Amino acid sequence: MEWIAFLIGFTIMSLGSLAIYARGSKAPPTLHHTLLHASVPFIAATAYLAMAFGIGTLIHIDGSVVYLARYADWSVTTPILLAGLVLTAFHDRGKTGEVGGYLTAIIVLDVLMIATGLISSLAMVPVVKWVWYLWSCAAFVGVLYLLWVPLRALAVERGEAIGAAYQKNVAFLTVIWFLYPIVFLVGPEGLKIISDPTSVWAILVMDVVAKVVYAFYAAANLDSALRSAPVYRDTRS
Amino acid sequence: MEWIAFLIGFTIMSLGSLAIYARGSKAPPTLHHTLLHASVPFIAATAYLAMAFGIGTLIHIDGSVVYLARYADWSVTTPILLAGLVLTAFHDRGKTGEVGGYLTAIIVLDVLMIATGLISSLAMVPVVKWVWYLWSCAAFVGVLYLLWVPLRALAVERGEAIGAAYQKNVAFLTVIWFLYPIVFLVGPEGLKIISDPTSVWAILVMDVVAKVVYAFYAAANLDSALRSAPVYRDTRS
Amino acid sequence: MEWIAFLIGFTIMSLGSLAIYARGSKAPPTLHHTLLHASVPFIAATAYLAMAFGIGTLIHIDGSVVYLARYADWSVTTPILLAGLVLTAFHDRGKTGEVGGYLTAIIVLDVLMIATGLISSLAMVPVVKWVWYLWSCAAFVGVLYLLWVPLRALAVERGEAIGAAYQKNVAFLTVIWFLYPIVFLVGPEGLKIISDPTSVWAILVMDVVAKVVYAFYAAANLDSALRSAPVYRDTRS
Repeated sequence: MEWIAFLIGFTIMSLGSLAIYARGSKAPPTLHHTLLHASVPFIAATAYLAMAFGIGTLIHIDGSVVYLARYADWSVTTPILLAGLVLTAFHDRGKTGEVGGYLTAIIVLDVLMIATGLISSLAMVPVVKWVWYLWSCAAFVGVLYLLWVPLRALAVERGEAIGAAYQKNVAFLTVIWFLYPIVFLVGPEGLKIISDPTSVWAILVMDVVAKVVYAFYAAANLDSALRSAPVYRDTRS
Repeated sequence: MEWIAFLIGFTIMSLGSLAIYARGSKAPPTLHHTLLHASVPFIAATAYLAMAFGIGTLIHIDGSVVYLARYADWSVTTPILLAGLVLTAFHDRGKTGEVGGYLTAIIVLDVLMIATGLISSLAMVPVVKWVWYLWSCAAFVGVLYLLWVPLRALAVERGEAIGAAYQKNVAFLTVIWFLYPIVFLVGPEGLKIISDPTSVWAILVMDVVAKVVYAFYAAANLDSALRSAPVYRDTRS
Repeated sequence: MEWIAFLIGFTIMSLGSLAIYARGSKAPPTLHHTLLHASVPFIAATAYLAMAFGIGTLIHIDGSVVYLARYADWSVTTPILLAGLVLTAFHDRGKTGEVGGYLTAIIVLDVLMIATGLISSLAMVPVVKWVWYLWSCAAFVGVLYLLWVPLRALAVERGEAIGAAYQKNVAFLTVIWFLYPIVFLVGPEGLKIISDPTSVWAILVMDVVAKVVYAFYAAANLDSALRSAPVYRDTRS
């Protein structure tokens, strides 16, 4: 009955994408957050549609399942979510090069985290699976380091209100993202403690929280920060 | 005789790329349009060379052909063409974050349009083919919405001359891009009303118009807009 | 015994990535160079780990080997290295659109150089192999043209010190990058004059020079240029 989960995922994600765009700010300096956050569930909707049709679904010899569509989705959506956080830390400031340096470093770590997670998922030999799982976790540690140390310092330096909004958003995303390697670990791609359908439903809930609920939460935090303490805005743009 | 079309495509695209660079503006604020537009046919030339050698060419059981090189080409060239339009709308203005938000949203929709078109092309079961065709069209509607509503408003706000140039360029690209889903629909990947060679020659003409003719047309419109009403230029850069 | 080379590569690249970050500048305007250059060997470490496990390693019918992990690595790391040079040429200046135009053009040429190199590597028929090798070299000429002509002019215009640092860095990268097509030409993917293990060890040394040694060399040149003649820095960011 996983196809029910996939169709629910497709429906929530499509409508979520439209709702984020419809209700989001259409004016600078937060317009681009609306656009980034509306893009994310549109991609997820496409991935859920693919999973509903069995496109990119691999079945191991032992019967466990790997959904390639998930990894394709995550390798694009997580960089966009991280880009939203990087742009919050640099709020309305920051040159192409500086923003680009952080974006490149965090997206490289993030995409390698997902690509090595996929290798781990596909590996049949335990030592291969767990070496790649650990390397994927090392990349995740790198992502968290950049979010919590240098980028957080940048956000805080930008003003108390922006700093607080940044930290709330990063905290939310950190908690929900931590669940993914745990579900992977206990799920059919890892120790096989929970079954494939359980993992599908768990990831559905996590995806909706990480992509749709987070979009509204992040926008609310950023909006209230800007209302309480408008930062200096460059008048030329 | 499709290989003749592919070699013609390779030749026109290679020479087109060189001609766009040779004849294009080498000074800001339009230099980057020259670079973007010269990149596009260089990619297309490589794709035509691949098709001439049969690289990435899949043959269905029913004899119809899917050229993967086309989809690889389009998934990179159409984002570059859209980036040119986004940068025109923001002409010489716009911060990294704001431009990046629009670029991300429109490129996500555009690449999903092409990826889902490829899934539709590869699908054998009619319901799968047409669900993905429709989802691809939905993404195309999203691209057109962003081009014609918020980005057009930005361009018009930037001054009458820039607004007019933007609208001419978007109109040209909209008309030529509309032909692709129609040729797909009636061609060997869709309803099989027209044959594979007919479709190859039709797409060759469309590609030359969308990539080479468009580059000269777009540059001419932008140049004449800037001559007629030079916009305020930031003196620092 | 290639696995020894791969484990050495993994170790040097992981430690190199940490060392580049630990010893690099953490403050603008050179922070982003630290982030870009630390990302590069982290990607290479992942590729060497994959090669150590035989992931993405293809064996031709004639026994020669193609390492897909290398091409995946190069298609991401070389654009990052080029981005560092483009940002040096535009040092602390340059709008999103202008920088983006050069980045797009040079990355398109660079990625096509690598993708067509992979096609050449996989081709069994000599004429196919050499046509793609030549097309890959044509793209390399395009990369060198952009680095040595328009970008160099930009860097020089930016001041003597920045211009000199840019030229030293480009010269270093040009020399080391020239070795890759030569090793390809004489190696198992080309004329098979040198053996697979010889080619693996040669590329290991070249990779360490191009990714780790270069990072320290480039940072030293840029730092001393900025010390000797600090360029005008925008006070707002």
